[in-house]
Amino acid sequence: MNASEPRLSWVIERPATQYAGAEATVDLGTGERRTWAETHLRVRAVATGLRDLGLDAGDRVGVLALNSARHLELWFAIPEAGLIMNDLNYRLAIDELVFIATDSDVRVLFVDDSFLDVAREMQARCPELTTLVHITVGDEAAEGMLAYDALAATPARDFDDIGSSGDDVAAIFYTGGTTGLPKGAMLTHRNLTSNAFHITASLGLNDTDRYLHCGPQFHLADGAFAYAVTWMGGVHVFIPAFEPAATLSAFEAERITATLMVPTMVNMALQHPALETADVSSLRKVMYGASPMPSSVQKRAIEAFGPVFVQAYGMTEASPLVTVLSQEAHRRGLAGEAPWDARLGSAGSPVAGVRAEVRREDGSICAPGEPGEIYVQGPNVMAGYWNRNDETTHALVDGWYRSGDVAYADEGGYLFIVDRAKDMIISGGENIYTTEVENAVYSHPSVLEAAAFGIPSEQWGETVHVVVVTKPNEALAEDELVEHCRTRIAGYKLPRSVTIQPPDQPLPKSGAGKILKRDLRDPFWADVSKGVN
Amino acid sequence: MNASEPRLSWVIERPATQYAGAEATVDLGTGERRTWAETHLRVRAVATGLRDLGLDAGDRVGVLALNSARHLELWFAIPEAGLIMNDLNYRLAIDELVFIATDSDVRVLFVDDSFLDVAREMQARCPELTTLVHITVGDEAAEGMLAYDALAATPARDFDDIGSSGDDVAAIFYTGGTTGLPKGAMLTHRNLTSNAFHITASLGLNDTDRYLHCGPQFHLADGAFAYAVTWMGGVHVFIPAFEPAATLSAFEAERITATLMVPTMVNMALQHPALETADVSSLRKVMYGASPMPSSVQKRAIEAFGPVFVQAYGMTEASPLVTVLSQEAHRRGLAGEAPWDARLGSAGSPVAGVRAEVRREDGSICAPGEPGEIYVQGPNVMAGYWNRNDETTHALVDGWYRSGDVAYADEGGYLFIVDRAKDMIISGGENIYTTEVENAVYSHPSVLEAAAFGIPSEQWGETVHVVVVTKPNEALAEDELVEHCRTRIAGYKLPRSVTIQPPDQPLPKSGAGKILKRDLRDPFWADVSKGVN
Repeated sequence: MNASEPRLSWVIERPATQYAGAEATVDLGTGERRTWAETHLRVRAVATGLRDLGLDAGDRVGVLALNSARHLELWFAIPEAGLIMNDLNYRLAIDELVFIATDSDVRVLFVDDSFLDVAREMQARCPELTTLVHITVGDEAAEGMLAYDALAATPARDFDDIGSSGDDVAAIFYTGGTTGLPKGAMLTHRNLTSNAFHITASLGLNDTDRYLHCGPQFHLADGAFAYAVTWMGGVHVFIPAFEPAATLSAFEAERITATLMVPTMVNMALQHPALETADVSSLRKVMYGASPMPSSVQKRAIEAFGPVFVQAYGMTEASPLVTVLSQEAHRRGLAGEAPWDARLGSAGSPVAGVRAEVRREDGSICAPGEPGEIYVQGPNVMAGYWNRNDETTHALVDGWYRSGDVAYADEGGYLFIVDRAKDMIISGGENIYTTEVENAVYSHPSVLEAAAFGIPSEQWGETVHVVVVTKPNEALAEDELVEHCRTRIAGYKLPRSVTIQPPDQPLPKSGAGKILKRDLRDPFWADVSKGVN
Repeated sequence: MNASEPRLSWVIERPATQYAGAEATVDLGTGERRTWAETHLRVRAVATGLRDLGLDAGDRVGVLALNSARHLELWFAIPEAGLIMNDLNYRLAIDELVFIATDSDVRVLFVDDSFLDVAREMQARCPELTTLVHITVGDEAAEGMLAYDALAATPARDFDDIGSSGDDVAAIFYTGGTTGLPKGAMLTHRNLTSNAFHITASLGLNDTDRYLHCGPQFHLADGAFAYAVTWMGGVHVFIPAFEPAATLSAFEAERITATLMVPTMVNMALQHPALETADVSSLRKVMYGASPMPSSVQKRAIEAFGPVFVQAYGMTEASPLVTVLSQEAHRRGLAGEAPWDARLGSAGSPVAGVRAEVRREDGSICAPGEPGEIYVQGPNVMAGYWNRNDETTHALVDGWYRSGDVAYADEGGYLFIVDRAKDMIISGGENIYTTEVENAVYSHPSVLEAAAFGIPSEQWGETVHVVVVTKPNEALAEDELVEHCRTRIAGYKLPRSVTIQPPDQPLPKSGAGKILKRDLRDPFWADVSKGVN
């Protein structure tokens, strides 16, 4: 039998041959432009340099960096060397980063100028993390670190200890966990190459596309375009991080055709004065994710940017794409055509290559309109969680991934998310597990009980609210509690508002003693339509 | 580990859910139009009906039919039932059809009105072939046959003996063999679903596409669109067989956006008077395969149909797509832009998901410009040849398929086919192995020596020419020889011209006694540029 399955090395090999002299990357942070031939050479050099550090196939390599062309190179170089990439969310608190780097035994960490101190503290606290590579422009690195551009000048060689199976793990992406501890979703070469086709087919990407990385590359939502755009021979353009003026300016100056933004980013761009004069006529497809856009925002967005919006729903465990709501669906919905008007509040329907089912607790399939848990199947579904056999066994059942999200499907398979079984808040496109917040809050000595949940926000979609009951005879100020959490969880996970109650006002509980969070949460959402939630 | 790989049942399940009420098939032969919900129901019914005939998972089911919506249903129904489809080239001679049906133990054969007598003769000569299903419109079948539409009304059920692996064989497609005997390439669910993405990504197919099946569906070149178009939720339109007026009329009446034609078909359409008045403005992409188009024809074709042409190169063993020459490549080539002008004579460059290498006899990779054998790798490469272990071992080496075609690649990976190691003639888009022709010729008692090869033809690209040396004291007329071959090989394989020589004019041979076919062939090609060959 034939065993040849695509690996990520195939993805960049194609433009390196067929589009060798064409533009590959435009780094608006550093001002550099590189061709595919140059990029491929650097990728192979960094891969070789990494192995020369004494790493073995399968070792984990971390990345802690803003967006850049070098960041893209690492998405190819690390798997090219048979190593496993662990791209870290730089917004996490130091304790979280240390936990993740330790959990996955990161041995080498690539870090850019913005996070040198964080990387040093991680190195001090993670015994396995022996080497820091400074993502430099040029050969001069921070003290005690190697220089990226020196590594990128290593004479490249091939490695004979790398398998040819698509089942090899190429990357681990950490996601928040319901237990409060992040867990690493292991994504294979097959997962990531399959997803690249799912994106390409859904968006119709081709070699005339110029994709702007304005959302963070460490997030698979943006990061996965590394593979889809490259395979088709498109061009990658980078700004270091999202900022509305820089994004609008890049759209115009670089004739951007495609990008991914979360609704919060779209909203910020819409409110920016530069939008008045910016030429955004090159845009053909803007994917937005994490949550539906309120239809008032959708209308304004289409007025400003054209009928270019495609909503996507997915999760790290699915590499990540599961469903899309197409441009045509938006057009018909905004024109008031049934059932498309209702579907504007949906997450879309499964893309070619991926199956999704809504199931009851007993595993049977729900009728249309009946809420249940979303199950996902496809070659894009992760191999499991790193070192978490129990959670893997729970999450992967008979070839299906249990998402934990609760939704109903309409007759056409369009998924309407009604709740998140994992009790997750999405704020500005970031997933926040309430358990993570609650664990941090509970670690304060004055806290008796706590419940965290999302409340509506015009700007962020949701923000974190916490209700705390103090211990008898203990006083607690909101500021003090937030400060207490600051080193424990990422800034974006911190409570934005807190209700503090004395011990004689306990949280509402079920007969079994379970906190009835919904009773606390519902009053905040009374005036907000479900579709927008 | 997660084992969920796409199967062909996923492909039709998607539009059946998401585009249930939308048009799926338009059969211009019968005048019927059906939705995806109806089509899916019929597919599942036919699958169930097949299993009720007593077939077991893995049994082979033949098809012998012109193009139709029912023909498309079979491409889903047979694999849906866990059975293996063997779609037969209806242009083959009866001896060839009997050989193939016997070789693969076809137990049930679907046959349409055009081939009832052939099917009956096959049944008489193939002991395993017990059941004929007449592809009917309505419930009345020819005597001794079941009616397709009755089968398509079977109450559908699921089967619990079908695996979930993408490695299961879904279809066997017979191709000519260098030994003169056709051999069956086994294509798995993974092969065919991978190829669907390769087509979709290369052509940018989506749910607004309306694809015309005007080339024969039994050929994978057209047939593979069954999966690509369906998965994206496009529409299939059928004419029973290629005919220029019917094709032009379908383009206009059905607002066709995409189709596949061989250069001979393009040429016939260009020469047809109906072209003058036909509205072909809906066409967006026309794939043409089998051979490059002479650039004079390319120019006229683009004038008539627009800049819609994409050349494809592939083979059954690769499910079939390997390379394409894009619309943009055609545009730049015809504008005289280097190196694109030269690339008009190429077969294009490998599509995303497929690798191709040109190798020397020792397996090392050729330098750009150096001819060698084309090797192909990807999830689209067949599992092997049915019951031909030796040929499989020869063809599949370390996860690569040895195509037997000789080509050189330019710096950008564009393949220029210079010869076919398999000694194949391509006439009107059909592959003809010279050994098959020679075997038929040699079976005539008066023939001492014979050599078959292709000679240039304006209309067909190539036609079959045979040089024969008669035995001493034997006379042989051209007509007699052709008649002799008629029951042994398909009509399109018959010699169109014959040179008959007496025994004192033997064929030129090498020192080792091998016939030097090139010496016979070259004079015919002296005036034809290589690119067009």
